[in-house]
This record gives sequence, C-alpha cells and structure tokens, in this order.
Amino acid sequence: MSAAGFARTPKPPYYAVIFSSRRNGEGEADYAAAAERMFGLVQTQPGFLGAESARDAGGFGITVAYFDSEENIRLWRNHAEHAVVRERGKREWYEHFEVRVAKVERAYNGPNS
Amino acid sequence: MSAAGFARTPKPPYYAVIFSSRRNGEGEADYAAAAERMFGLVQTQPGFLGAESARDAGGFGITVAYFDSEENIRLWRNHAEHAVVRERGKREWYEHFEVRVAKVERAYNGPNS
Repeated sequence: MSAAGFARTPKPPYYAVIFSSRRNGEGEADYAAAAERMFGLVQTQPGFLGAESARDAGGFGITVAYFDSEENIRLWRNHAEHAVVRERGKREWYEHFEVRVAKVERAYNGPNS
Repeated sequence: MSAAGFARTPKPPYYAVIFSSRRNGEGEADYAAAAERMFGLVQTQPGFLGAESARDAGGFGITVAYFDSEENIRLWRNHAEHAVVRERGKREWYEHFEVRVAKVERAYNGPNS
C-alpha cells in the first residue's frame, strides 16, 4: 500500500486508525485495484498524516492510517466513494476485520532517526 | 507471530504499542527464534491483552501489542530479557523502526463479530 513503508508523522498527539484484516482470498485483482485507489484518495483528505501497511502471505494484514483529529477521521469515514468500497470489502473481500481508533501519545524510532 | 491473527481485546479504553519495522534481511533464523520467544514472553506480562502482527514479502512489518495501561507497557519495556533482545534488534536485524504508543478510544469489527 505504502511503497516507502514508513509514515512521516509529526510530533504527537495525533490519531491512528488501526485496521487489522484477514482476506478471504477472493477477487484479488479487484481488491488490489480498490486498495490502490483508496490509498491515493486518502492522501487528498484533510488532516491525513500518512499510512503504513503490511500483509503476510497468509492474508492477514494491518494498515494504520494517521490523522490529525477525530473530526478528520470521521470525514474520511463518511467520504462517499470510501463508504461504497468499504461496503464492498465487507461483502466480498474480508473474512474478518477489526478497527481501533487510538490517540497517539508518544513516539520514537531507531536505530537511526 | 500470532498464528490466530486477531487479538481479542476488551472494550476500550486500553493501550496499543504500534511497532513498524523494516528488516535488513540479515540473521533470519536468529530473528525468527527471538521473535517467537518474545511473543511467548509478552503473554506472561501483567496487563497484556493481545497482539497482532503482519510482515510482507519485502520485509516491512507492523506489530501491534495491546496492554491495559501505560504502567504495564513500561514494565514490559523494562523487562530484562526483552531489553537485551531489543538492543540486539537495533544492532543486527532492523534497518529502521517506529514505535508509537496510543490510547485506543473506540473499536468495532466486521463483517460479523
């Protein structure tokens, strides 16, 4: 999803939407196209700070999207095209998912920043 | 890391340690053994609620560990064996990592809970 890998986030506080999911193995081409489209779209959203994503060979994946505020998370959640794709994901692509919205309070990195 | 995939977390609030990392491709056997050992060890820690982990074929991974409190996150951070392995990770296994500590405020799941 994010070719570069790491999100370049500002100093906390900010918000994280942690999306854990298991794919059902169906519709890979459609799923990949929709994921790419959503990744492009979210970057145009107010308050979007970055995203990180990894999916293992077994189909379990974690995507974390960072936003500056709860209000802008809600705006993205209510985005019309995003809502349509999300419903399609529930019907067609995910065996199960968990969404957790969290406030990032502190952050650090390594081995070299 | 977590064979089952999803963490069974309680109702918020609780805490998430979001660990994003890129492996350097070195020492895979040692790294895998240490990761398995740490995954076993963290489950014995006070306040540990669960963990989720995914790493893609390119070596970029996200692990999220859930705890009941900041205090228990600190206890795990200060655990002697964990500290030794963490330092080894910095020296030997990771090209880069980001750690973000966040308070989970709300959560939901789908398509069926």
